[in-house]
Amino acid sequence: MEQTLRLVIDCPDQVGLVASVSQFLAQHNATIVEASHHTDLQTGRFFMRHEISTDSLTMDIEQIRLGFAPIAEKYSMNWKLVDSSKKPRMALLASHESHCLMDLLHRWHSKELNCEIPCIMANHPQMKQFADWHSIPFHWIDFKTLGKEAAFAQISQLIKQYDIDLTVLARFMQILPDTLCKELAGRAINIHHSFLPSFAGAKPYQQAYDRGVKLIGATCHYVTSDLDEGPIIEQEVMRISHSDSAQDMVRKGKNCEKTALANGVRYHLEDRVIIHHSKTVVFA
Amino acid sequence: MEQTLRLVIDCPDQVGLVASVSQFLAQHNATIVEASHHTDLQTGRFFMRHEISTDSLTMDIEQIRLGFAPIAEKYSMNWKLVDSSKKPRMALLASHESHCLMDLLHRWHSKELNCEIPCIMANHPQMKQFADWHSIPFHWIDFKTLGKEAAFAQISQLIKQYDIDLTVLARFMQILPDTLCKELAGRAINIHHSFLPSFAGAKPYQQAYDRGVKLIGATCHYVTSDLDEGPIIEQEVMRISHSDSAQDMVRKGKNCEKTALANGVRYHLEDRVIIHHSKTVVFA
Amino acid sequence: MEQTLRLVIDCPDQVGLVASVSQFLAQHNATIVEASHHTDLQTGRFFMRHEISTDSLTMDIEQIRLGFAPIAEKYSMNWKLVDSSKKPRMALLASHESHCLMDLLHRWHSKELNCEIPCIMANHPQMKQFADWHSIPFHWIDFKTLGKEAAFAQISQLIKQYDIDLTVLARFMQILPDTLCKELAGRAINIHHSFLPSFAGAKPYQQAYDRGVKLIGATCHYVTSDLDEGPIIEQEVMRISHSDSAQDMVRKGKNCEKTALANGVRYHLEDRVIIHHSKTVVFA
Amino acid sequence: MEQTLRLVIDCPDQVGLVASVSQFLAQHNATIVEASHHTDLQTGRFFMRHEISTDSLTMDIEQIRLGFAPIAEKYSMNWKLVDSSKKPRMALLASHESHCLMDLLHRWHSKELNCEIPCIMANHPQMKQFADWHSIPFHWIDFKTLGKEAAFAQISQLIKQYDIDLTVLARFMQILPDTLCKELAGRAINIHHSFLPSFAGAKPYQQAYDRGVKLIGATCHYVTSDLDEGPIIEQEVMRISHSDSAQDMVRKGKNCEKTALANGVRYHLEDRVIIHHSKTVVFA
Repeated sequence: MEQTLRLVIDCPDQVGLVASVSQFLAQHNATIVEASHHTDLQTGRFFMRHEISTDSLTMDIEQIRLGFAPIAEKYSMNWKLVDSSKKPRMALLASHESHCLMDLLHRWHSKELNCEIPCIMANHPQMKQFADWHSIPFHWIDFKTLGKEAAFAQISQLIKQYDIDLTVLARFMQILPDTLCKELAGRAINIHHSFLPSFAGAKPYQQAYDRGVKLIGATCHYVTSDLDEGPIIEQEVMRISHSDSAQDMVRKGKNCEKTALANGVRYHLEDRVIIHHSKTVVFA
Repeated sequence: MEQTLRLVIDCPDQVGLVASVSQFLAQHNATIVEASHHTDLQTGRFFMRHEISTDSLTMDIEQIRLGFAPIAEKYSMNWKLVDSSKKPRMALLASHESHCLMDLLHRWHSKELNCEIPCIMANHPQMKQFADWHSIPFHWIDFKTLGKEAAFAQISQLIKQYDIDLTVLARFMQILPDTLCKELAGRAINIHHSFLPSFAGAKPYQQAYDRGVKLIGATCHYVTSDLDEGPIIEQEVMRISHSDSAQDMVRKGKNCEKTALANGVRYHLEDRVIIHHSKTVVFA
Repeated sequence: MEQTLRLVIDCPDQVGLVASVSQFLAQHNATIVEASHHTDLQTGRFFMRHEISTDSLTMDIEQIRLGFAPIAEKYSMNWKLVDSSKKPRMALLASHESHCLMDLLHRWHSKELNCEIPCIMANHPQMKQFADWHSIPFHWIDFKTLGKEAAFAQISQLIKQYDIDLTVLARFMQILPDTLCKELAGRAINIHHSFLPSFAGAKPYQQAYDRGVKLIGATCHYVTSDLDEGPIIEQEVMRISHSDSAQDMVRKGKNCEKTALANGVRYHLEDRVIIHHSKTVVFA
Repeated sequence: MEQTLRLVIDCPDQVGLVASVSQFLAQHNATIVEASHHTDLQTGRFFMRHEISTDSLTMDIEQIRLGFAPIAEKYSMNWKLVDSSKKPRMALLASHESHCLMDLLHRWHSKELNCEIPCIMANHPQMKQFADWHSIPFHWIDFKTLGKEAAFAQISQLIKQYDIDLTVLARFMQILPDTLCKELAGRAINIHHSFLPSFAGAKPYQQAYDRGVKLIGATCHYVTSDLDEGPIIEQEVMRISHSDSAQDMVRKGKNCEKTALANGVRYHLEDRVIIHHSKTVVFA
């Protein structure tokens, strides 16, 4: 993958904003590989993402950062300038279901996901075998012995120790405590096995079976203190019928889960997601 | 369309059931055009639909009905034997949005829907122009002048007067009173403009916009006293993104609504739907 | 619909391009409602579409056009500046199948398609009833009596007479002669009832049935002299199975055709499509 | 998974056929878990699949086989009676792309695919690591050193040696010789990375990119001597746009490939597919 810089901005919409940013980029001879804009007409908020080739640039990233700061200040921007060659550090949290874990690991292995995976944590020890194959440190968080509080303290501590940028709950069946949700705000992604807001909470496939819906789905979202209420990044659905048992739905649903989670994680890792209140802008 | 008989059955599952039915059909030289079975393993209920060509039959429908009655009794069947050449009578209820009404009318006009449409009712008079083009009697139900109670009494009376088999709420924005829901149980179909159970109730597109979902949908279901809780027949979804305004979602959603409603109505008219408690078996 | 201006550009990619355009827009106090960019990295071609609110503009469209001309020249742009309040004039060509015609007419009637429809032409006279309902002049092009050459000459003459901007072949089953294809280059849209390039030519549903595919589709594309080879604007697919007869596939396919054509036509009318060699950029 | 028997039949359609089969099943007290019928009205061919619980049966499988033989003969049936507890033996053939291999292995590991995998063969040695993790014998078929003829002879010999029932080409990029295709007729499944019949042959994603289609796909089909012309079992598609590079299409397409192949293989392993000339009946 070619090295690029990603300039991601959100701020109040104003005339002249795009001109200022694009003029700044032109002044430093930036070749724009990809550009995405969005204006939320209801709230008057503006969102922008540029992906810039580093080949033609006349300055390094730190100089650009310094140079851009006054523009950012003038327009009251939330912004970041990210070097694509600096891989984010992603931790995976799993439980006893391995399909999402395996899927993410293989996409990482085949370089579809551009990140490092410094550790895998799970509340079931048999997930170690997957970590071992990829030579990734594995931590069994023994919820039964430790109790919830100590277990989550250990997770929190490991996230800090490994200097994790993104924590992914790959069908991790434990509810994160409020403090950890806040600690990881905007930096933790979950996959819920229903088409939210339908069937929030436990046993979504059984709920879907009982309600007799004709499509099932999965939802990839940021973790927040309000369970299953975080900003949605990606959703997938699949058609079912009366002939699908609750177990068939589990099997079919796994495909939705893997796809929605893999896309959601990739969007985040490539700085394509901007959280805006309880929603997301995703420059897919 | 070729004339067929449709034998639709549901009963407790038992060994010998299919043999009895198929032997009966063979004895009368029935050529089976389409056969569908389903056993609900959780409840032990059996569902079956046969579509039989009338060409080869050695008896007429009434004789077959008489002949089948003892088998039906033996196995405690809910059953019906329907002559496809006898078109069901469908009434359409509309409001100020015309897309579902138009879509159903054109599918009927082009013979995709095999029924008669003896009347159209609406609480907005401008729907008359659509009825007129198709030479279908139109009744403006003036809710404002009449008040809800009298208006629904008129609708109920017209349904009886026209001897209606199926009442379709084609984006009819009024909530049917409990008595009418019960009167029309299993004979009234609604289209809800969300992917139920998400966003039940009013303004589902605005709800979807506010929640930031990445797919919107529509649900075709039988009308019951519990609003938006009736057995689901068909659902459709469509991908959206942050760049879709609430109005864009309305526009996109209309395609879902038209398709889900048209399929649901067709399934019902072709006797492909069996209601089982709060769910449906649809032999699509 | 609010009045906007649409600035649509394609040109060789260069550093400074976006800055020049956005600076120009800012100088005239343009509020950008929607902005889309694309760089084709293989050919080095740049594509851009801006939708600008007219409310805040300090100049009228003609002055802006004059002011922008030097920038367009500097960067060797293909460009247009379109006033959304000036509705394009769309002609519909139909045959004996009415579903696409009806669908477009109803979307136009409900203001989903922002255009005028000055005339409908068909080689079957019964399409007149649809035109009449909407009070649109109808021309029966009697191919049998006239012969192909005279018939197409009449169509060409009517397109000129009505000053048509876009000609839509709404399941018009005649192959346009080479000269007419060239005359209408980039201004004529067709719907083909297969997922091109599969099943080009005649009877695509029968071809699909014979090949045993598990999905069928429809393709909306610009008309070119090479039959079914024009730049694709939009495609739709739908799942089928062995239990679908060739007639079932026709029925199911119609939904694909209507949706793909309606979207393709809307994209064109809203200046969202840029043709680039044999392909399209669609800022949907 | 519960043990079942699967009775799969195809024969000329005749009155009395279903009665004979279902009566036979009832006589032996068979509980029908799942039943699927299909009559091809064009060719008059009848297809049927029953899945029967073994719990209630009064005879063992061999006695049932003997008992059914006269009925099968009377109606000129192709038929098989399969014991679900006897796992089919599946060989995997891979090349340098591992996504389909990994996906099948993990579905097998998590018991979604009910089979044995006695060996994996590949023309690239690095696939060994995946085989090792699952403790499956691995054979590197060194095409470069051996030459095509000897290499395929070795594959053919290994298929015999391991007593393989189903050979799956999991993105195996070599074209099987005619003799091997015939040897494995109906017992070898391939995944082609396009929506066939579009883009048959080499580099389908590049072909799709060049043609500018708006959807890409994958096709799971039986291997025949006519390359990419075998009976189709399953297809998947995914939406793309101008902003997807040829590499993006490869990434997106992999999801289609994995899903289509996994479903096609599962249908085959569960005896849900009946080949009929160049097409399939799939009781999904």
